[in-house]
Amino acid sequence: MKAPWQPSPPWPTVAIVGVGLIGGSVGLAAKARRLARRVVGIGRTRGSLDAALARGAVDVATTDLAGGVAEADLVVVAAGVSTIPALLERVDAAAPPGTLLTDAGSTKASIVAGWERRRRTRRGRFVGSHPIAGSHRRGSAAADGDLFAGRVTVVTPARATPAADADAIGDFWSALGATVFMMPPKEHDRILAATSHAPHVIAAALAAATPEATLAFTAGGWRDTTRIAAGDPELWADILLDNAGGVGDAMKRFAGMAERLLAAIARGDRRRLVDLLSRAKGTRDAVGS
Amino acid sequence: MKAPWQPSPPWPTVAIVGVGLIGGSVGLAAKARRLARRVVGIGRTRGSLDAALARGAVDVATTDLAGGVAEADLVVVAAGVSTIPALLERVDAAAPPGTLLTDAGSTKASIVAGWERRRRTRRGRFVGSHPIAGSHRRGSAAADGDLFAGRVTVVTPARATPAADADAIGDFWSALGATVFMMPPKEHDRILAATSHAPHVIAAALAAATPEATLAFTAGGWRDTTRIAAGDPELWADILLDNAGGVGDAMKRFAGMAERLLAAIARGDRRRLVDLLSRAKGTRDAVGS
Repeated sequence: MKAPWQPSPPWPTVAIVGVGLIGGSVGLAAKARRLARRVVGIGRTRGSLDAALARGAVDVATTDLAGGVAEADLVVVAAGVSTIPALLERVDAAAPPGTLLTDAGSTKASIVAGWERRRRTRRGRFVGSHPIAGSHRRGSAAADGDLFAGRVTVVTPARATPAADADAIGDFWSALGATVFMMPPKEHDRILAATSHAPHVIAAALAAATPEATLAFTAGGWRDTTRIAAGDPELWADILLDNAGGVGDAMKRFAGMAERLLAAIARGDRRRLVDLLSRAKGTRDAVGS
Repeated sequence: MKAPWQPSPPWPTVAIVGVGLIGGSVGLAAKARRLARRVVGIGRTRGSLDAALARGAVDVATTDLAGGVAEADLVVVAAGVSTIPALLERVDAAAPPGTLLTDAGSTKASIVAGWERRRRTRRGRFVGSHPIAGSHRRGSAAADGDLFAGRVTVVTPARATPAADADAIGDFWSALGATVFMMPPKEHDRILAATSHAPHVIAAALAAATPEATLAFTAGGWRDTTRIAAGDPELWADILLDNAGGVGDAMKRFAGMAERLLAAIARGDRRRLVDLLSRAKGTRDAVGS
């Protein structure tokens, strides 16, 4: 009996540089959805690679980046934003000419600009991505093949990026279940400053400003509002520094709204205060739990 | 065969004014823990009373406050902070002399001061309480007999409050499973400004300041940080107005910390930024998920 015919996977070999939560989840999703024949995991330490192998997120694992990407059709760099530019350089030097590259960094403008600055000498084809699907958990032990399903991934082609390349990267994330938006890298950073990076500053400021002696009197509200302050300080410092302008603008809008609330409280203007709180509730209710 | 001997419940008749989430949970917990022979629910509308009866949170339900408290040994006023002073007056006029009264309001200084101002003419004995066990859900349908278990309730005696009265109210909340702290009302308000009221202003300011066009790009971080902004604008306006001074002080501390974070970001001072984010993470980690 012949085996039933199966289409070849669109990216026979996918290499993932950085096998943490996001990289591991890309591997699991790519395998579960039969997008790759082989997933190669590349990491800095045997520990993280063994965890990714144990989780079934990758088929083979190596600390040798050049060897790991040597036969890749698609390379996903899933590392902290400050390390992505150098990793892209190394991947580009070692992967076959024409290989598609993307990343999963939380900022896009500087990463894309760094690639574009030397576009003419690149061997591979890079299009930036940001799957908006984080977690405060870390490591491939927490990886989830459905992490991207029903969530948004932003793909950020540069002006010179061929539409076919942007589409190919968009198709990859779509195939992992994501809803894909395309936009210029700077617009991505401006938006994410409002929806993710400024909220991190706010949560951290609230946590750090709460006197230790009062912590026994916190409840669900404080815990929700400060939850993301538990994120990795090094990773978040790099994100915030890389999007300093966007964060500053978003924090100005936030501070202006906080001032309006505080002014209404100080004046005892209940009608105005209810109006502002109702506006906040309307926005919050629109997003859902 | 004789029925086994059972001790009388410490508060034979408990009346609860306001049968929402908190009032309903007090009723459920008092019945489950056999603290009351009879729980009387008093509400403004038949709808809320019928819901409390259906939930099993109260044994009898009435819109007649005077009649409802006429035989009460303990009355719990579980209503919005702006309505508590007037409700206490009405309860005091109708309950038997010597009845213990408490409330469950999120602010304490003005409520306790209002009672104390006319202490000499009071018939009952009031001690303020704040069970720190809210939820963004509302109504007795969401009531939970374990809502107070393992959580903190603050009991706020005034200077003239007899220790025995404060202890009796503390014992009640302890019997519902709460960890009870006693402190002066003003200290309660100062602490809760930091742990609950300022976080509400912050969450509301962030939600209201986030441009609508960016909401599709929110993820778990934004949703956590803004969750309490979905709370009832009228109830929260009253809380914030009643604790305006405390909220202002807590927001100054928050704004100062946000300024320090933003200054480090603007200067590109990574070491300082990591240090501040680490401090925030330390505080957040100390509280737990």
